[in-house]
Amino acid sequence: MKRFENDLQRIEHALNAVGKNQKPPSLYDPISYLTGIGGKRIRPLLCLLGTRMFGGNVDTALPAAIAIELFHNFTLMHDDIMDKADVRRGQPTVHTRWSPSQAILSGDVTLVLAYEELLKIPVEVREKVIHQFNRTAIEVCEGQQYDLDFEKRNDVSEEEYLEMIKLKTSVLVAASVTIGAMIAGANDEQVEKVYEYGLNIGLSFQLRDDLLDTFGDESFGKRIGGDILADKKTYLLIRSMRMAGEAEKAILDKHIGVMPLDPEVKVNEVKSVMETLAVADETQKLAGDHYHVGMAALKELSGHGVDVDDLSYLANLMLERST
Amino acid sequence: MKRFENDLQRIEHALNAVGKNQKPPSLYDPISYLTGIGGKRIRPLLCLLGTRMFGGNVDTALPAAIAIELFHNFTLMHDDIMDKADVRRGQPTVHTRWSPSQAILSGDVTLVLAYEELLKIPVEVREKVIHQFNRTAIEVCEGQQYDLDFEKRNDVSEEEYLEMIKLKTSVLVAASVTIGAMIAGANDEQVEKVYEYGLNIGLSFQLRDDLLDTFGDESFGKRIGGDILADKKTYLLIRSMRMAGEAEKAILDKHIGVMPLDPEVKVNEVKSVMETLAVADETQKLAGDHYHVGMAALKELSGHGVDVDDLSYLANLMLERST
Repeated sequence: MKRFENDLQRIEHALNAVGKNQKPPSLYDPISYLTGIGGKRIRPLLCLLGTRMFGGNVDTALPAAIAIELFHNFTLMHDDIMDKADVRRGQPTVHTRWSPSQAILSGDVTLVLAYEELLKIPVEVREKVIHQFNRTAIEVCEGQQYDLDFEKRNDVSEEEYLEMIKLKTSVLVAASVTIGAMIAGANDEQVEKVYEYGLNIGLSFQLRDDLLDTFGDESFGKRIGGDILADKKTYLLIRSMRMAGEAEKAILDKHIGVMPLDPEVKVNEVKSVMETLAVADETQKLAGDHYHVGMAALKELSGHGVDVDDLSYLANLMLERST
Repeated sequence: MKRFENDLQRIEHALNAVGKNQKPPSLYDPISYLTGIGGKRIRPLLCLLGTRMFGGNVDTALPAAIAIELFHNFTLMHDDIMDKADVRRGQPTVHTRWSPSQAILSGDVTLVLAYEELLKIPVEVREKVIHQFNRTAIEVCEGQQYDLDFEKRNDVSEEEYLEMIKLKTSVLVAASVTIGAMIAGANDEQVEKVYEYGLNIGLSFQLRDDLLDTFGDESFGKRIGGDILADKKTYLLIRSMRMAGEAEKAILDKHIGVMPLDPEVKVNEVKSVMETLAVADETQKLAGDHYHVGMAALKELSGHGVDVDDLSYLANLMLERST
């Protein structure tokens, strides 16, 4: 991320100021804690790059970038309670380190602080931006709701899964860069293309994330097979259940929804079914398709003073592609 | 509330439209449920009356009134989880009827919907109103945090308690009428007086609520002594602990923080200490003082085309005073 070092420092500096020295500390400490344990800041960076790309001054976009990261952190505090996640970025989650009540309340105030940031953006584009922000926030909640609903269902289709991850994660990536573009005064057609770029890169990123959870490299520090152990209905699993012949179905039935005696056996046997059915390759291909759609939208924006290099570079960085 | 029937119908109609037919139903049903089980709509009504009082058109204030009621419902969904409250307005709370996850997420989307309403108010006053709304929302979260913090402390002072209820409940009453006044174009001095009215009526209302919980009439359907059984550090209890002589201290020590064998004995003995120490009278007096400060602020606004009758009437209705 050396290329974006200045922008990232700007983001870090502004984020650190949020809730600083506010009382009571019990309310604000979890906010600084979650900010302090890191994160790649992809979303606020996308917002600044969306502004710069159309010749805008990134300082005018900084409050929106901060609002987006605060919104993201708000969802993390609350989702981690719902998902019973104990660890985030290698550290205890807020509800684990403090309590669920604390995570609810500190999350709530984080969302309000995000809205206070949005009042700092230029008045000419403010209404448009807040509408986009609200629409996105509502979609993210809807996505989380579908995710919760899917836990109780065994008939989730591939389409439903893709719609869920679109709402839960991709629309926020798309909105980040779109809001940046809006602040720079991009026209409606440009805004639409930027959104398409963000949405598809976001989808590609999420599919890749699912793949890494099952087929990734343990050396990255992330435990492999978490989704399988949690019976998470990812694209990989949904597709496997659909494509399974009798032999594979027997293996899946033995493991899905069953607390394993030996977690490693469960992970390995489900993985081997996924390999047999080539769903990893299919998922990889789907992620690649979205990448290409996103990059094509970006390319259409290029020229007439619009420089797409940063967004192209960042997409490849996010997806660890060398193309 | 016959006097305000038209306004209340207007509020009910607009509230019922929120989240209507949105998907997934699992996300939006709890919102309609909480709206549907009633509530006195004091806050949105105060908002409309704040506008009418200064000659404004209440229709321009309706979205703000709805935003305020949505914000209030958002706090109820989340606070009821934190406070482990099973019943609200005589019905199961959202986290009891659905689940804590559901109450968190439906609460979150309710807050976003409130912000979407705020974009509908006239652009000339929008920034001012959203700032006021944000400041209030932050204070309400801070108040809830103090309330949670106080549960773990035995040395909470009367001043701290009053500051807590001010933040947790009174500032929202104050903001409701203030935002109404802002929308009608009231000047800064008028806005300040209206806020003073709302804040003091809100404090008076909360103190009275505490009194009714312990010394009220069972026939209203509310169980008497809930605060005592929950060891809630109300003004009544804090003051009793401070004023207690040895005999009273012995009774309080026997009961506070102790799960009672016979709840009725606990309630009656603690109540009798409160009566001996005359803290009920003191609390009543304090509530009365705030009422008078609030009404004095209102009186100063009267004249020059400003009609304070509705707000005067509503305050007396809220506090069931005939004066």
